[in-house]
Amino acid sequence: MLISPIDWIGERDRPREGHVRLIDQTRLPGELVHLDCRDVGTLWEAIRSLRVRGAPALGVAAAMGAVLGLKDTGAETGEELVRELDKVADYIGTSRPTAVNLFWALDRMRRRARELESRPAEEVLEALLAEAISIQEEDRALCLALGRAGAELIPDGARVLTHCNAGALATSGHGTALGVVFAAKEAGKRIEVFADETRPLLQGARLTTWELLRAGVSTTLICDSMAGVVMREKGVTCVIVGADRIAANGDTANKIGTYGLAVLAKAHGVPFYVAAPSSTFDLSLASGAEIPIEERPAEEVKKPFGVMTAPAEVAVFNPAFDVTPAELVAAFVTEKGVLRPPFEKTIAASFASAHTGALGATGPG
Amino acid sequence: MLISPIDWIGERDRPREGHVRLIDQTRLPGELVHLDCRDVGTLWEAIRSLRVRGAPALGVAAAMGAVLGLKDTGAETGEELVRELDKVADYIGTSRPTAVNLFWALDRMRRRARELESRPAEEVLEALLAEAISIQEEDRALCLALGRAGAELIPDGARVLTHCNAGALATSGHGTALGVVFAAKEAGKRIEVFADETRPLLQGARLTTWELLRAGVSTTLICDSMAGVVMREKGVTCVIVGADRIAANGDTANKIGTYGLAVLAKAHGVPFYVAAPSSTFDLSLASGAEIPIEERPAEEVKKPFGVMTAPAEVAVFNPAFDVTPAELVAAFVTEKGVLRPPFEKTIAASFASAHTGALGATGPG
Repeated sequence: MLISPIDWIGERDRPREGHVRLIDQTRLPGELVHLDCRDVGTLWEAIRSLRVRGAPALGVAAAMGAVLGLKDTGAETGEELVRELDKVADYIGTSRPTAVNLFWALDRMRRRARELESRPAEEVLEALLAEAISIQEEDRALCLALGRAGAELIPDGARVLTHCNAGALATSGHGTALGVVFAAKEAGKRIEVFADETRPLLQGARLTTWELLRAGVSTTLICDSMAGVVMREKGVTCVIVGADRIAANGDTANKIGTYGLAVLAKAHGVPFYVAAPSSTFDLSLASGAEIPIEERPAEEVKKPFGVMTAPAEVAVFNPAFDVTPAELVAAFVTEKGVLRPPFEKTIAASFASAHTGALGATGPG
Repeated sequence: MLISPIDWIGERDRPREGHVRLIDQTRLPGELVHLDCRDVGTLWEAIRSLRVRGAPALGVAAAMGAVLGLKDTGAETGEELVRELDKVADYIGTSRPTAVNLFWALDRMRRRARELESRPAEEVLEALLAEAISIQEEDRALCLALGRAGAELIPDGARVLTHCNAGALATSGHGTALGVVFAAKEAGKRIEVFADETRPLLQGARLTTWELLRAGVSTTLICDSMAGVVMREKGVTCVIVGADRIAANGDTANKIGTYGLAVLAKAHGVPFYVAAPSSTFDLSLASGAEIPIEERPAEEVKKPFGVMTAPAEVAVFNPAFDVTPAELVAAFVTEKGVLRPPFEKTIAASFASAHTGALGATGPG
């Protein structure tokens, strides 16, 4: 059932002979096409063009990309390799400059290289590949733990509504919001999902429904504007979404449309859950007011799929994310368990040793 | 400023020489293309393909289409013409069998023909053209009165949010929800509009923004999922939408997404107004529970603009309309004035002499 959006192909002790294979997510759901990246330039383009996306998956891509970028250099000593890594990391960072996970993973790779810089280049390169694979395995274990923790919130016969794609394709496998769905299904519970298409980029229509059908989960696609009626008339048990960044008080930034969905859930008495690993909680932010919101190009709204559907001269408001206030969230599902209100206390208690900048849950695009 | 989606071209006393000209709304906003319909078959195809749409506009199209269908018959007596009209009307009715306004207008034409069946065919045909033009002129006057009544709800500097297209293109000119905007602007008020794109068929993106820009109204296009954030952060003064059918208690059927918007408006303390002529009120329905909701093809959601964006096998829920309960409506704007709660009383008092089946406000498509 596991879909892995990105993998290292080859022996772990022969990094120079291996390469990166990823699912080209821009071809989904039409075709399941794998792209083999044998050099860092090909991977750079894949990140830039959203062939691989989602915060945790981007961290893995950057780390593996660093190995790709180093394997053909002539570096003979660890010190030379460390200097080369700086260049390679800077280059990878230009592919999606706002994706924090990219930089988090690259920093981790740099730290590991510096620890070993007195060793031969070959040994450092092997250790870097091991580090990249560790990043992936840690994320995979974390998603599994998160899914199992969240599955307890899902009753047998549940009807879950979700938004955007917080699935396996966004992570190293399993996913966050969808990880909860998959874990509930594995635990033998009957479960159905309503998937918001998620305008403007339709990650729900393109990716979430594809993952769910592949996993044998009964799935119904709806337009975002239908969520209210579905809650009122279709017996929705709960809403589960991922998150991009969560402040210390529980205010949650996630894909645009999440806030409206949370308001609708409240109005219909439907519990609204946010599934995200602990690294998504940024305790340096007191509240959601401190989370910057990226605005994306007007063409995503005016010209979907290359077809102009609005007057060229019309103004467009196209924020990538919105912030859902903590009081609309019934619980957070993390790899450490389910957190209930009051969130300021439960979040602080769970993540006392807060990371700074780590793998998030789902990224833009 | 007036956009007329459909017109009779020719002298009123020479029906056999005239024809119908309409704006091909499927070509908007890319191109403003007029389509000349010189026979009823061309008009039938235009209705079927949504080149002309919106309940009041469809009534006008059907009435004028009847004249088109009769002008080339060999009928010499009024009685022969009445028999021909039955056939023509049945044919036009097959173009959009669920559009009540089509049938309302055709019935009105048949009644008029029967009143005159003892007269010569020429005289009856001329009277039928006059009747079709009357239907259009009555709707135009009604929209103007409605707009002026509603303009009093709009303060100077208002920021209005609307959904779908309840504009001039859906009526005989001026529109209902947009009629209120146009009237407020004409009264010298500064006004801005946020237009929901309105998935799946994007009437908001394609038609509403086009009409508003053409009228010089500052307009911002948003995806439907952004309405909540826009209400919270952009100082929305009120929401105004059209209606397809309103029950005696004020429950309102309108384009899918209207209900969710009304819930969001309530949560943000934003007044939610419904603009619709009195004929949209169907006093034979006690509540919205009695309004049937049409489900439309899955392809509208899965394959927007010919591009497949979801797995072919995924289930889709695609209701054309939803019902907004009366308690979420702050006021109805009609040609008879503004109606406030308690709606069961104010609706009954205003429309004591209720029509049965008449021109509604905005239709599907």
